Formats: sequence, C-alpha cells, structure tokens
Amino acid sequence: MAIKPFTEEELDDIYAFAVQLGKDAGKLLLEAAQARFNGSGQSSQDFSEKDSAVDIVTKTDEDVEAFIKTSIAEKYPDHAFVGEESYSKTCSSRAYLISDTTPTWCVDPLDGTVNYTHLFPMFCVSIALVLHGKPTIGVICAPYLNQLFTACRGRGAWLNETQRLPLVRSPSIPPMPENAPQSCVFSCEWGKDRKDRPDGNLCRKVESFLNMAAEVGGRGGKGGMVHGVRSLGSATMDLAYTAMGAFDIWWEGGCWEWDVAAGIVILQEAGGLITTANPPGDSRTSKIEDVKLGSRLYLAIR
Amino acid sequence: MAIKPFTEEELDDIYAFAVQLGKDAGKLLLEAAQARFNGSGQSSQDFSEKDSAVDIVTKTDEDVEAFIKTSIAEKYPDHAFVGEESYSKTCSSRAYLISDTTPTWCVDPLDGTVNYTHLFPMFCVSIALVLHGKPTIGVICAPYLNQLFTACRGRGAWLNETQRLPLVRSPSIPPMPENAPQSCVFSCEWGKDRKDRPDGNLCRKVESFLNMAAEVGGRGGKGGMVHGVRSLGSATMDLAYTAMGAFDIWWEGGCWEWDVAAGIVILQEAGGLITTANPPGDSRTSKIEDVKLGSRLYLAIR
Repeated sequence: MAIKPFTEEELDDIYAFAVQLGKDAGKLLLEAAQARFNGSGQSSQDFSEKDSAVDIVTKTDEDVEAFIKTSIAEKYPDHAFVGEESYSKTCSSRAYLISDTTPTWCVDPLDGTVNYTHLFPMFCVSIALVLHGKPTIGVICAPYLNQLFTACRGRGAWLNETQRLPLVRSPSIPPMPENAPQSCVFSCEWGKDRKDRPDGNLCRKVESFLNMAAEVGGRGGKGGMVHGVRSLGSATMDLAYTAMGAFDIWWEGGCWEWDVAAGIVILQEAGGLITTANPPGDSRTSKIEDVKLGSRLYLAIR
Repeated sequence: MAIKPFTEEELDDIYAFAVQLGKDAGKLLLEAAQARFNGSGQSSQDFSEKDSAVDIVTKTDEDVEAFIKTSIAEKYPDHAFVGEESYSKTCSSRAYLISDTTPTWCVDPLDGTVNYTHLFPMFCVSIALVLHGKPTIGVICAPYLNQLFTACRGRGAWLNETQRLPLVRSPSIPPMPENAPQSCVFSCEWGKDRKDRPDGNLCRKVESFLNMAAEVGGRGGKGGMVHGVRSLGSATMDLAYTAMGAFDIWWEGGCWEWDVAAGIVILQEAGGLITTANPPGDSRTSKIEDVKLGSRLYLAIR
C-alpha cells in the first residue's frame, strides 16, 4: 500500500499506540530478566538447569519481537514490519530494509543483549515507525532503568513522557562548549569485530577513540582531550543518552536500521544532529548531509 | 581512640546507620540534580544564570560531604573521617589515609562527577567504615538508578536491601566461564591522565584494553576476546556492578581509598576477589594477595 499522508490526529493515535507498545514490551523484557534473579519473589522454575543464559536471551528476544509484530499486525495490518530477529533468520545478505512507499515499523526487541545476559541495566527495546524512509515515531524503553524515551516528528522528545529532552534546559539548553570536543562526553563501542589487523575495524576504532581521548596536541595534532569516554554496550542507549544530553558525541559503524531508527527521531526532536560518519570532502565548507537509514555509519551530536 | 572490637549488635546498629546515611545522601544528590531539569516540577531558581554546571557540582559535592561528616560526628564522635572533598582541600601530597587504630569512615560524596554534570545516571555516593585497615561496612547509593548496594562483613551483599548479590543465583551462581576472559564483560576507565607518551598512563591503559578486546591469538598471543568492554565513568559503579555480577572483571589504577573502600566490602561479601593489579611473579604459583587499601592499583573479579 502506498503511503497516504497521515493526518496529525492519525499520527497522534499511532504515537500513543507505539508508546504503549514500548512500555508493554519493556515489561516483558524485565519480567524475563527478573525470573533469573534469586530472592526477588520471582519464580525461576521456568528455566531448567541446562538452559544457558544465551538460550534464555534468544527465547526472550524472539518472544518480545513476536509480541510486537503481532500487536502491530492486529492494529495496522497494512503496515510493513522489519525486526532484528525475523531478519536474522530469513536473510543472509545485507539489503536495504525499509520501504519508501509503505509505512514500516523497524524494531529491535532487545538491544544490549550481552548486558541483558549479565543483568547490567543498559538494555532496551527500540520501536520506530518509518515514513518515506524517515524515522517519524521513536520509542526506546529501558525497563531496568525506568527510562522511556519517546518522540514523534514535530512533537518534541521526552523522557518518561514528562521531561522534555534534552534534560538540562535551565535557564537554557547549554550550547556545545567553545573548546569542543574538550568538554564533551564521547560515547563509543568496541563492537564484535576484533580482528588484530591494522586495517581492521578494531584497530581503526581504537585509533579514533585514542584521538578523541589524548591530550590536545597529542596524536600528531589530532588529540581531542574529551571530558570522558563511555562504552555502554548498546548503540541504542548511546543514541538515547545523546538525545538526553548526557552524551555530547557518539559515533558507530556497522549499525542496522533497527539499532538507530527510533533513536534518530528522538535525537532530532531533541535538537540533535545525526549524519553519516564518513568525513566530508572539506570539513569547513562541505554540506552536512542528513542521515539516511541504511548508511550503517553514524555520527550523532546533541 | 583505639578500636575496642564491636559486638555483632553494635555492628548491626552501625550498619543500619550507614545504610540510612547512604539513602539520605543519595536523595540530596538527586534533588540537586533535579533542580537542573526543566519542566520536572523542580525549581531552578536556586541557580543564577552565571552558575556553571561545574560550580553547582562542586557545591553539591561539598554540601553532601558536610552532611555525611556532621551526621557521623553526631552519632559517633570518636570515629575518624576521611572524605574526598575535605582531603582535596587540606592535603597536597599523597599519604596513606586510613588509621589502623581508629574506626574510620571513608567517604566519596559524589563519584562520577562528569556523569552528574551531564545527568548521565552513573553517579553515586560511597560510604565505608574501615576497621583495622579493612573495609567492614560499605554503602553505595546511585539515586538516579534507584540502586542501593550494601554490605557488612559476614552479612552478605545486597541490592536495594532485598536482592542478594550477585544477582544471578538460580539455580546457582554461574562460575567464571571456562574460556575466560572470552565470555566475560570487562570494565575499565580511560581516566584523566591523557598524555600522548608511550610510557604514559593513557597508552599503557589502551594497550591493556586492546589486549583484552582483541581476537584470541591476536596481539602476539595476548588477545582476550572479552565478550564486552564497558566504561561508565565511575570506578565505584564499576566495582558495584562487578559485585552484582553484571561485570566479570574490572581493573583500575590511581584509585583513592574513598573510590573503592565501600565497593571492596560489597564485592567481597558477594563472593568476589579484589587484589592489586600488579602482575604476580609467577602467574601459576604466586599467592594472590588480599587487597590493601591504599594500593591504588586494583583488579576485581566477580
């Protein structure tokens, strides 16, 4: 079905649906995590001794995605759905996933899988509605943190539905520091590709992290002396915290659409910028392109 | 005053006092943070436009330490007190801070200062009672996360007073993986010393991070291929999450007593090990020494 433009009222309805869906999915994630605690009053009988943490997480991932997919199909049978779990099972090669003509839901049922396995709180569910290739509604629910990030194009970005993002707005949103990146908090992830090759992802990433961290003048003039370097193990949470203003700069390569679709609209509605992380031809004069979903390489600034 | 050994009842009383003190101090931190939000229903009138985030944080840091110090002095006038803020103001050189003969409270009113300024949730207050040089009571309160970590020697370690640490205990506490560190989550911090010198802290730390992260066989055989690398910007929270089981390994150099005193007893009561991070003479046969407060270089394992 080609997209008939939604009225503002229709968009409000879809936004409310997406927010509730994010809350419900987050609750499912947390309940499954709590079943692994001891002494929390939750039952651990669902898991036999032979179930490994990884099996439990895979099952949770699939269950939560199925719940989201079914809920959307019941409410909006004409919309398309792209989810991490469904995609991983059916596709072997990399293809651009989002239709330009059909309203498409882009969902990661669980970002921060390793964190979830270890009960480190930085995990979340990410739900986005993409229209004409642009993320238009975004919901990120981090249930263990009690943090719900939401945005809809034109309606601002919100934490827990009551606090406008970015959080620090009194008396005004602080501008990026004049000596940026020196006073900035920089977030980045080490990723899973750890081949020890000079041209590999690991070495190139660590080069970049070192440049951001090293004293000004160091690293052949590239030293950024950022105020802090953070790695959370969840690209989606990185992006949410950049929207919140907790982080100033985030970059990542190798993202999938479901990692970033919700975060993009939340960041943009909070006044942040996101573009491809490929350096421009001339850093002073080149136009900064708007991000395109599917570019895989992202740079976000609050 | 020389230490007269406390009875178990006396220790219970002091523990209850310390836990309440941690909660109250955490509440003060959170209230000061919330005053910087806009639209949260909190007043921002206390801060004039010229107040920078740094000034506000310094004031909060001092206020919270003063509150803790006064509360302890009223209740236990014979005990000694070592706090980060008081120490920084009065001492210029590095000295070992903890008395062997007087019960000493060792307090960091705010760990994760940069996070606090940016409203990134990973900040906390850390309160420890040290007896005969050994951390005996530890309280870490991360108020924005609603997480309170507590322990007293012989009484176990707890999250929010109800969940025994480490969290995952069903059906039993999972052992360290046989292929460790491959399945481990490793936490580490970049620190503030970022001189671009081969023998400087930055380069030596990044060497170590790279060894932990790189593929097995990489880095001249040192590659650890850990499951994840995390940097939170708070050594105290790193240690708390290692006790919780969210992280498996943490190491840090340059810690102060108040960064780690509470975390040490919480980790140990959760069954974890903490020692100096200096490598032993022979890794197979050397005795693993118990940690000493003041060693500045720490290695913790859940």
